[in-house]
Formats: sequence, C-alpha cells, structure tokens
Amino acid sequence: MLQQQTTTHFLNTADLPQEEIQALISLALDLKQGKVQKSLAGKTLATLFFNPSVRTRVSFATAMSRLGGQALEISGNNVWSFEYADDVVMDGSTIEHVKEVAPVLSRYCDGLAIRCSELVTKSTESASTGSWAESKQDIVLNSFAKYASVPVINMESNVYHPCQGLGDAVTIKEQLGETKGKKYVHTWAYHPKALPMATTNSQLLAACDLGMDVVLAHPQGWELDPEILEVAQKRVIQSGGSFSISYDQKEALEDADIVCAKSWGALPYYGNWEAEKQARAQLKDWIVDEPKMARTRQGKFMHCLPVRRNVEVTQGVLDGPGSIVIDEAENRMWAQMALLATLLGN
Amino acid sequence: MLQQQTTTHFLNTADLPQEEIQALISLALDLKQGKVQKSLAGKTLATLFFNPSVRTRVSFATAMSRLGGQALEISGNNVWSFEYADDVVMDGSTIEHVKEVAPVLSRYCDGLAIRCSELVTKSTESASTGSWAESKQDIVLNSFAKYASVPVINMESNVYHPCQGLGDAVTIKEQLGETKGKKYVHTWAYHPKALPMATTNSQLLAACDLGMDVVLAHPQGWELDPEILEVAQKRVIQSGGSFSISYDQKEALEDADIVCAKSWGALPYYGNWEAEKQARAQLKDWIVDEPKMARTRQGKFMHCLPVRRNVEVTQGVLDGPGSIVIDEAENRMWAQMALLATLLGN
Amino acid sequence: MLQQQTTTHFLNTADLPQEEIQALISLALDLKQGKVQKSLAGKTLATLFFNPSVRTRVSFATAMSRLGGQALEISGNNVWSFEYADDVVMDGSTIEHVKEVAPVLSRYCDGLAIRCSELVTKSTESASTGSWAESKQDIVLNSFAKYASVPVINMESNVYHPCQGLGDAVTIKEQLGETKGKKYVHTWAYHPKALPMATTNSQLLAACDLGMDVVLAHPQGWELDPEILEVAQKRVIQSGGSFSISYDQKEALEDADIVCAKSWGALPYYGNWEAEKQARAQLKDWIVDEPKMARTRQGKFMHCLPVRRNVEVTQGVLDGPGSIVIDEAENRMWAQMALLATLLGN
Repeated sequence: MLQQQTTTHFLNTADLPQEEIQALISLALDLKQGKVQKSLAGKTLATLFFNPSVRTRVSFATAMSRLGGQALEISGNNVWSFEYADDVVMDGSTIEHVKEVAPVLSRYCDGLAIRCSELVTKSTESASTGSWAESKQDIVLNSFAKYASVPVINMESNVYHPCQGLGDAVTIKEQLGETKGKKYVHTWAYHPKALPMATTNSQLLAACDLGMDVVLAHPQGWELDPEILEVAQKRVIQSGGSFSISYDQKEALEDADIVCAKSWGALPYYGNWEAEKQARAQLKDWIVDEPKMARTRQGKFMHCLPVRRNVEVTQGVLDGPGSIVIDEAENRMWAQMALLATLLGN
Repeated sequence: MLQQQTTTHFLNTADLPQEEIQALISLALDLKQGKVQKSLAGKTLATLFFNPSVRTRVSFATAMSRLGGQALEISGNNVWSFEYADDVVMDGSTIEHVKEVAPVLSRYCDGLAIRCSELVTKSTESASTGSWAESKQDIVLNSFAKYASVPVINMESNVYHPCQGLGDAVTIKEQLGETKGKKYVHTWAYHPKALPMATTNSQLLAACDLGMDVVLAHPQGWELDPEILEVAQKRVIQSGGSFSISYDQKEALEDADIVCAKSWGALPYYGNWEAEKQARAQLKDWIVDEPKMARTRQGKFMHCLPVRRNVEVTQGVLDGPGSIVIDEAENRMWAQMALLATLLGN
Repeated sequence: MLQQQTTTHFLNTADLPQEEIQALISLALDLKQGKVQKSLAGKTLATLFFNPSVRTRVSFATAMSRLGGQALEISGNNVWSFEYADDVVMDGSTIEHVKEVAPVLSRYCDGLAIRCSELVTKSTESASTGSWAESKQDIVLNSFAKYASVPVINMESNVYHPCQGLGDAVTIKEQLGETKGKKYVHTWAYHPKALPMATTNSQLLAACDLGMDVVLAHPQGWELDPEILEVAQKRVIQSGGSFSISYDQKEALEDADIVCAKSWGALPYYGNWEAEKQARAQLKDWIVDEPKMARTRQGKFMHCLPVRRNVEVTQGVLDGPGSIVIDEAENRMWAQMALLATLLGN
C-alpha cells in the first residue's frame, strides 16, 4: 500500500539547524585529516542524473567508495521518461510513475541522490518549465523525496545545491579557522550563458551559517529570490554575522577575506533568456581580476567550477596564490562523505 | 583454439528441474530474511544491455554489490556492432565477432548477463528481425551462451525473462506460503504499445512450477506461442496444478489469489505492429480495476513494472492494500542474488 | 597555486628502462599464476574515454576490481568540452580547462587513465586534427599528464597504446619462455578503414624490448613514423635482438615464432583518408591465411582485437590451434594489474 514517507532528506542546508551544519563541517574536516573512520560497507547510493555532471558524479562516487560502499549511476533517457503528475492516464510518452520508481529504488538502494536542474536541460515531459514560480517547485526532487523510503540527497535542483554550499562551508572553515567577524563576498560574474541560481543560493545560505559579514554583490536586476534572501538574513543573524547587498563589485571586495564568484541568470528575464543575454552582454566588466583582488585582505578566491577562464575571472587570479578552487572542489568529497556517513550510517 | 562451451547458463526457468527452481526460491527467501550469507567477493558480472533498463540494471548491480562483487555495464553503441553470423567476411559495419567477444569477456569476468529484446530496439545488423520464427531463435543470447566459458544469464531475450519469472515465484511463495491449490491468474492488459511476450512467457512458466491452478486470460488473437504453452502445461501438471485459458477477464479473476497483469503484442501481427495497434485499440476495457479485483479471493495484484497507471490498471488497485508490486520488484534482487550465488559461487 | 606536476606516468613503454618493462612482465605473470597478491583497496582509477571501448574498459575495470579498488568511467559529451589551449578567453563552447579538471580529478582519484585517439573520433574543439605533426603532439593526454598530480596512464593516444604493448609482451613471454633469438613478425593487414597507428607503434616497441629478431612487414607507403622506428631500433639492439623491414608478407613470415597482425592508415595520406582508402583497396591480399602461417615455425598468431574475420585473417587461422588472441586479450588485464599495482600502490 502506498504511503508517503517521512525520511530524513538533505534538500537544502537551511532545512537543518545550524548546529547540525556545524557538526557536518567538523566531521568532514575530521575525515579529511584521518581523525575518524566511517563505514558504509555494502551500501549503495543510487545517483540519478537528469543533467550530466563530472565533478558531482566523481565526488559522490569516490565519497561512497572511500566509505566502503558504492554509487550507482542512473542517467540518460531512462530518467526523463518518469511521470510526476497525480491522477494521470499514462497513455503518452512517460513510461513509469515516480510513485513506483522511488519506492522500488528505495528497496534496492540505501539512498537516492538526484540532480535535476531544468534550466540546463532541454525539456522534460511532466516537470514544469517556463516560469520561476513553476521551476521553484522542484517537482522532480520533491516527488522523489515524497515517495522514497530512504534518504534523498539534492545534487542540485532548480533552487538549491546544498552539497556545494556544505563543501564551501568546509573550505571556508578550513582556510580561516575562526569564521566569525570575517568578511565573505559572493559576487556575480559575467558568463556567456544564463546559468541556474541554485549554486549561488546554497553558497550564500551556507556562508550565512558561519557568523561572517556576508556581502552579496551583483548588477541591478540580478537580485536573488526574495524568499531565499529572507532566509539567508535570518540565518546570518542567528549565527552572529551581518548581511548586505552591493551593486558595486569593486567596493564590495574591499577587505574581503573570502571572494566567491558565480554567474547566474536574472530572475526578471526567467524563461526569456535571449533578452537576458542582451542585458548581460553589457556586464563583461564583472570579472574578478588582480586589481580587484588587491582590494581584499589577502582574500582567498573561490569558485564552484567549472569556470570560464578570463571571462568570470582572470587566469592571473585563478593560478595565483590566493586561489583555493582546487581545495574547494576536493572538499565537496569530504563534505559529502560526512553527509553520507550521517544519513546512511547505522 | 576455439571451442564451444558447455557451461551452466540461466536462459529459461523451464530448462531447470522444478527442484532447482524450488531451491532458488528458498535461497532467495533465506537471503532476504538474513538466514544465510553468500559471498561473491572479488567477482564481476558483465551486464550487456542491448536495450536500456532501470529495474534490471539496478537490481543486478545491487545484487552483486550485496554479495561483495560488482556488476560492470556494457551498453550503447558498443554492443550493437557485434557480428553473429558464421563464415562471414567482415568488411561491413560489424566490428567484432561474438566468437571473440564472448570468450574475451569470459576471461575478464565471472559471468555474463545479457538483455537483448529485438521488439523494443530499433535494429541490429546481424540479429534477425521481422518474423517471430526468426526472433524466437534469440540469436544474440544463444550465441553468447555458445561461446562464453562462464555462466550466461538471460536478463530478457525475445522469448524469456526468467529472472522476472523467478522473482515472481519468490513473491508468490512469500505471500501465500503454501502455493498448491491456490489460483493464479495471468491477465493481458491494454497498453498503448505492442510489448514483447518474454515477460509473460516467463511469469507464466514460473507460476506453473508452483502447483497452482493457473489461468491465462487474454483476448482472442493474443494467444502465446504454442510450444511455450505446451511446456507450461507439462510443468504445471508436474507440480500438481492445473492450467486453463480464458478469453473473459472478469470471469477469469473469480476467486483468484494472485492476479498478475501484463500486456504483450499479438503473435498474428508480429512484424506488422501498426495493424496490431488498431486491433488492440478495441481492447481498452482490459484494465484491472476495483470491481474486477472485488471478484477475487482478496487477491494480490502483481505487475512486473513499469506500469501505465490508469491504462493497464487503475491507481485505486495499484495504490490499494492488495498491491504487492513494490515487493515484487524488490524480490527481483533477492531472486537474482540466489541465482548469482548459485551460478557464480565456488 | 597552479604547479606543473612531476608524477610518474605511463604514456609509452619506451619511456621506461627495459629492466622496468621486464619487472612489469614478471609481476603480471606472477599475478596471473597467483604467486603474489597486490592490493589497491579503497583506491579509484578515473578512466576518461574520449573514444568508446569494450576491451580496454572491461580489462581496466576488472583489473582494479581484482586488486580491491574500482575504476570510475568518465566519457561521452562530458570529456569533449574540456579546453587545452593556454591564455584563451573561454567564451566559446569549451566549459572547463584541463588546468582545473586534471588537478580536481587528482584530488578525488588515485590515478587517471585516458583514451584519446583523434583518428577514430569525429572532432574535438581544441585538440589539433588534420596533420600527423599536430596529432603526434597528443595534446589531450600530455595536458592531463602535465596538470595531474596522480599517475596518468595512456589507454591509447594518437601515438601509443602502451598497455597493449605491455600485454603483448606478457603474452609472448608466457608463450615462448626464453624470447631471445626468437622471430617476431609484425605484419600490416588489410582492413576496410584507415586505423590509428598507436597500437602498432606500441606492439612493435614492446617486442623490441624482448631481444627478439623483429621483422616489420607492410606495403610500401605504409612506413611508420621514422622517429618511432629509430627508438624501436635502439631498444631492440639494447635488448640483444635485431630489426628489419620487409615489403613482402610471405617472405617475412618465414620461420616466424610469433605473427602479430594489425592494420593502420598510411602516413603519406594522413588527413586525406579517402585517397588512402583507394590505395589500400589494392592490398586485400595482405590477409594472414593458412598457407602463409604454414611458412612459420609453428608460429603463434596474435591480434589485439577487435579483428575483422576473413578480412585481416582467415577464420581458419583465427579458430586454429596456433591462435592465441584470447590469451592475448586476457593478458591485457594481468599486465594492467601489474602496472596499476606498481604505479598506484603504496
């Protein structure tokens, strides 16, 4: 008999109390330093990629492997034929309902990790596309979370990329030690394409859990979703930090300890990306370069990767001593090991 | 020097004595209940998918993983370029002969599992298509079985899907305990496409090994292959059960303990699927719904999945207390673990 | 901060001293005979396939698995979007630079294995195509070798296929025991397509490390790259063997102990493959058949596979008692286990 499940999932860092975020960060650093051992021997994480991925796929596969388990990839045309709507007569092109897929995979595997970001995919039958209001529902991710009986991990949805956020928090903690009172600048960067907002949302939310003075810098018109900004402000106050928004990249970078660059598409143009592209084309000076980094307090440069060299950031910054992008990528794996050990462990 | 091999394969449940089927069912249930442990540590099963799959792929991968081994998928364009014909001058588009591929994979791996169902694929160079007589030869599967020196497992061919059959037998045994004297109804269901007969053939054959009163219900013209029916009837008598065919779904379901629904394409139209589709379009009332299930003896509803909701079966039945489709899917894994441990174990 | 790495890679057998080649051969045979155990428990090899593969993929996956580790495949469109050029403004279609990809994968994995052969691929954005001089630079492989901080293994580049060479050396040693003074003939064979030279280059180089009397037989115009021939001649003298070239297949095979057949495209036509095809069409008598094999000293027949039956070699030879192609394929795995245990072991 079909039952909706109430399992512990990891869909958004801001769903967790800040103490649990802190505990995950500590565990990740302990695992990295070899201070603790965790085992998921014999356990399998199904990783469903509605969108392709290199970094996320390899870091989840090696995270499971280092814990003694395995990640099992499900991708390609297989995943796009699932149905999500209720009460539908399935005589069209979708061949299997999430009401069957999620419970069945839950019987075979110990966890389900899902990447489904509409903005970077061509189309999907049932998942809504078009407006941000629709995309924000994250139908694919939330349907799996509803019908799975094992933990569901968000490997990037339309709205959040919490594993990137958690990995970044681990990296900031690793670099700075004490994070309270330090300045974190999250800056928009020019990119030839309109990218999803999910990574920025989660990077920002995670930084807001560290008690830092958080500055969000972007051009006018590139404001993030107000509901998410509200949560970010609530979390930053809770952690003893501060929050502000700047439309001036240079000014924002002043005395920064951490500079995190990321491009995203502008919400007012959501679904009308050709127009967004034209507006964005005027913003090529939103590139992190050496003179801008010179304004920081020997700030460290972060980027989630992949990065467009000499477009989002100059190669001088990227290859320079302040760049910690490779550590940041590595820490995705340790953060995910901490998460998997916590969610899937006995 | 090339030698044809005489290894123990698993191509069709009806190749095995009924005692061996019983032993596999018992082992599967013992494994599920944690009563026994089996190990395939360090062993690899190559899984060749000529057709895509989610359930079969994940259940084989997790079956191997839970036994301490691994499944290694080979699929896509790689597999379609194999040659099967004897004495051919290979100056065309096939690039490797099964006479090399099967022995080589046998050296690397401990078993080969193969899914190759022509009806659901576009085309293949050498494998025969067009007539049922040709398809029935299962050239791909049987060629691998001929030239492999390790066990070959049928993950669905044109004719059989024995792992589904075995998994269903495990589920029926799990549900009913004593199966003798119980009524099993295998009913055709409407579906927008002509599907292969392999699953039905193997589900029916497996039920015939359990000493049940087996009823096969389908519209006139949708008769299964007479040779397979003959084997089914022989096996059901051997196991102490009975066998009958009905053209009336409602009548057939009377007092059923188990109802297994499955759609398949009609043999008289084989290769002429457009015409079959038109004939089938008249049969939309072959749907399992609540009133029909009310005729059963609190019958359990089975379906191999993926299932078309509100087309093959209503969501009321599928989400109701009598539905055991998720258990049935799960038991694929336990059945395959029993099979793999038996075939590949030392 | 970006640093170029000086890790031990395996890009070409001829980069290694002959004693190290001998040690790898011995270790491979010891592993095959179960005389030694090696462990790569918990280690992951990322395998990047810019070109598809069955044999290489399965033999690397099972090699890692038998050593207790795992191979993690990265392929498809993911890999083709990498950028290799220096100082480029990345506002086009490449989305990630090797300067990030190689170090990041090095943090996740313990080794990187790369297959990138331009001749058998359609196109690549940044990697050079067109002339042999450009292809010979092996930009993809060498860029990964430059920026990775873990061992890089060549799974076939434009120029070399050292794992095939090493595997063949293991097979020859296994067959002949003492190799000095024995005759090895590497013969070109007709094939409907122009194939890469990499396999032949590495098979020839490896044979030259065994102190054999090496004869390279091919039609006029099909000469290998002179620089590689020079290295081959240097290595064969070092190992106490001899080297000669023949344009007459029958004569070359006289008294051969080992016959290794392989087709490749002619260098003078590089990049102009239609013209090469016409020239090649005159050479269909370059097939290894029974009368030719009768001239050998009960010679063993080798081929790297996949092989075109009755085109490169007759089925009589391939299925006959002198054919060791299946052993040769198997030994790829043992050779790679020796290599992986040596490079990735503690």
